[in-house]
Amino acid sequence: MDILEIIDKKRLGKELTKEELTFFVNGFLDGKIKDYQMSALLMAITINGMTDQETTFLTDVMLNSGDILDTSMINGLVLDKHSTGGIGDKVTLVLCPLLASFGIKIAKMSGRGLGYTGGTIDKLESIPGFKVDLTEEEFFKQVNDIGIVISSPNKDLDKADKKIYALRDVTSTVSIIPLIASSIMSKKLACNADVILIDVKVGNGALMKNIEDAKALARLLCKLGRCHNKAVICLLSNMDQPLGYAIGNALEVKESIMTLQGNGPSDLLEIVVKLATMVIGPINKITEEEARDLVFKQLNNGLAYNKFKEFVEYQGGDLEKLSVSSKIISIKSDRSGYINQIDSQKLGSLANLLGAGKQTEEDTIDYEVGIVSSKKVGDYVNVNEELLRLYINEKTIDITELLSCFVIDNQLRETQPVIYGIIK
Amino acid sequence: MDILEIIDKKRLGKELTKEELTFFVNGFLDGKIKDYQMSALLMAITINGMTDQETTFLTDVMLNSGDILDTSMINGLVLDKHSTGGIGDKVTLVLCPLLASFGIKIAKMSGRGLGYTGGTIDKLESIPGFKVDLTEEEFFKQVNDIGIVISSPNKDLDKADKKIYALRDVTSTVSIIPLIASSIMSKKLACNADVILIDVKVGNGALMKNIEDAKALARLLCKLGRCHNKAVICLLSNMDQPLGYAIGNALEVKESIMTLQGNGPSDLLEIVVKLATMVIGPINKITEEEARDLVFKQLNNGLAYNKFKEFVEYQGGDLEKLSVSSKIISIKSDRSGYINQIDSQKLGSLANLLGAGKQTEEDTIDYEVGIVSSKKVGDYVNVNEELLRLYINEKTIDITELLSCFVIDNQLRETQPVIYGIIK
Repeated sequence: MDILEIIDKKRLGKELTKEELTFFVNGFLDGKIKDYQMSALLMAITINGMTDQETTFLTDVMLNSGDILDTSMINGLVLDKHSTGGIGDKVTLVLCPLLASFGIKIAKMSGRGLGYTGGTIDKLESIPGFKVDLTEEEFFKQVNDIGIVISSPNKDLDKADKKIYALRDVTSTVSIIPLIASSIMSKKLACNADVILIDVKVGNGALMKNIEDAKALARLLCKLGRCHNKAVICLLSNMDQPLGYAIGNALEVKESIMTLQGNGPSDLLEIVVKLATMVIGPINKITEEEARDLVFKQLNNGLAYNKFKEFVEYQGGDLEKLSVSSKIISIKSDRSGYINQIDSQKLGSLANLLGAGKQTEEDTIDYEVGIVSSKKVGDYVNVNEELLRLYINEKTIDITELLSCFVIDNQLRETQPVIYGIIK
Repeated sequence: MDILEIIDKKRLGKELTKEELTFFVNGFLDGKIKDYQMSALLMAITINGMTDQETTFLTDVMLNSGDILDTSMINGLVLDKHSTGGIGDKVTLVLCPLLASFGIKIAKMSGRGLGYTGGTIDKLESIPGFKVDLTEEEFFKQVNDIGIVISSPNKDLDKADKKIYALRDVTSTVSIIPLIASSIMSKKLACNADVILIDVKVGNGALMKNIEDAKALARLLCKLGRCHNKAVICLLSNMDQPLGYAIGNALEVKESIMTLQGNGPSDLLEIVVKLATMVIGPINKITEEEARDLVFKQLNNGLAYNKFKEFVEYQGGDLEKLSVSSKIISIKSDRSGYINQIDSQKLGSLANLLGAGKQTEEDTIDYEVGIVSSKKVGDYVNVNEELLRLYINEKTIDITELLSCFVIDNQLRETQPVIYGIIK
């Protein structure tokens, strides 16, 4: 096969065959196809698109480029969860122990923070002693022992995605639905769970900026799941403001604990409950309302939180030692009015500047720092009333920049729902 | 400026500013912008296009990336000639001495063969002793002494084009008019002649496959010339069959000599005479018909050929020693009928396989070999009548492949003109 002919075909907007995609991805992995040739193809794909058939082929090639987790080692229904990435997104930290407390097996490989969004692994590492690098043996033993494990990848899953994603990141070929879908699903299919929950975030702090794109992505994710006999449930949720109040690793763990104790922010709670209900209902063959009641009960009776504690302790974490910075700055509003918008992406970047995330690969994360909003979109704020609190250590940020994240008007604009819908 | 934002802008089909193009090209030259980022931008340009304004900016940036020839060192009107590349294209070898015999100064830097088309420098090197690597001093002395010089580049002209072209060649981003135009014109403007003749080849053996594209390219070339106060004259000529009969270095020099002696193939002669007329007419303020008569006279009275001899001898070449292979194979037609088409590109590739061109950078050229057609499109051929002659040394080619270059039918199809038009 000819490298240039394949690039040329996609340049002209034609459909690539499974053989051509296999040849290209494998050639890229073994170095025969150069990164400048892959980036040319990726740009042609980004502009001219890919059919669902091509996306299916690409996903398969990528999936088979690395190891695949042998989940037959796990007794019971195995569930995995993924988020397309949001600011203050701590759904995994609440939802996974909650579902595990119902006996569902959570076997999750998770990543570190990427860009302006934090990663679950980073958040868990803010708990002193928490071990994220489990061996394959430890991973399977833990999930079979207590029903939940979250680890950094311990196998070389989806090699192609790693190499292709690194290139997409530096060539402006990230925001294209078929490439996003094949990247997510090849990773998730390699983790080989029976049920895959995907939280597709929509809004100014998310990869998907509008609902139409989010729906298209969700449909494609479900379709790719079906090709591999996996149940994929996608939730479309609002990322026009940070989820909950806290942004920053230990701060988010604390907020997650409160939520697991039945005392969480309403938007976070709504998403967690919806996703849990979607799983618990069909498994127990009960109505959605019954499932919802069960889920609330599990949050309020302490069982979900107990599972979280058990999970953290099993992986060596000491919740007693979880700490946030004691250097707190209260930021007051310079205006009064209704908060009509919060620029999540910018707020996420500012939290990173405080040390909550990495600017470069060499940076270290300061788990104690972050930003906690005092208000949500739709709230009224008076001039000089507290808008948010900064938890800082060494680094500071520009307060004007911070205030510019909030759009405050005299009139209250129509607010958006937390959940836009479910696609499965 | 942000690399990804610039790529993104072109990905979305927006117009890049002069500053953005300058930043990108210069960043690529000094290594800050990686080849995979340049190839992503080139693919976005290839698919989404560039406005004339962008092409002008890009041409300027590329032009200024290297040296510019100081043609003020040459006394008189300086002319340069370029071809977009064709099979058996020996127009330069005939036209340049012809125009020089009229007192026009020909100061030409020429390249080697690229892909399936031979380069003028390679053809001249088939003349034993001919020196193509002239110093800048030798270059200017020669053109002032005898009015014509053709040399390999002795200055670092258009550095950006070299690096960008190498990348385009391996990423399927060659066939895009604004990139072709900026590549040609940045090189030609760096050679800094007063008049630039460009032979835009159209057809199966050319970069431009149809007349509309060729016209668009020609208009853009003229426009880019005007921005720099250069007179650009584009001739659109037919490349649906090789030009003349001969393909191969020494074989083409021999055919050029015959043409300079008033005895050339009619298509080659037509192009040479047209281009010369376009230059001679306006300079001498005479009608096109008068100019044409003058040109023919100069070919028939030996003055054009004498200039060629003087030029070759000045650069050390010995025409007496010019030789073609004595191992000649006559290929007969396996059918009778009218020759309706000759696949020039394939014939060019086959001539290269015989050794007339390089397959890889390490190959050496065999100047003595090549292919000479016995027939042109529109001719009738009988079965077992000679279709072409191979001049071979060590390498051979597949005769079936060779015969498949000829489309022979019972009915004569409408033939195309040699010249499609002039754009200036």
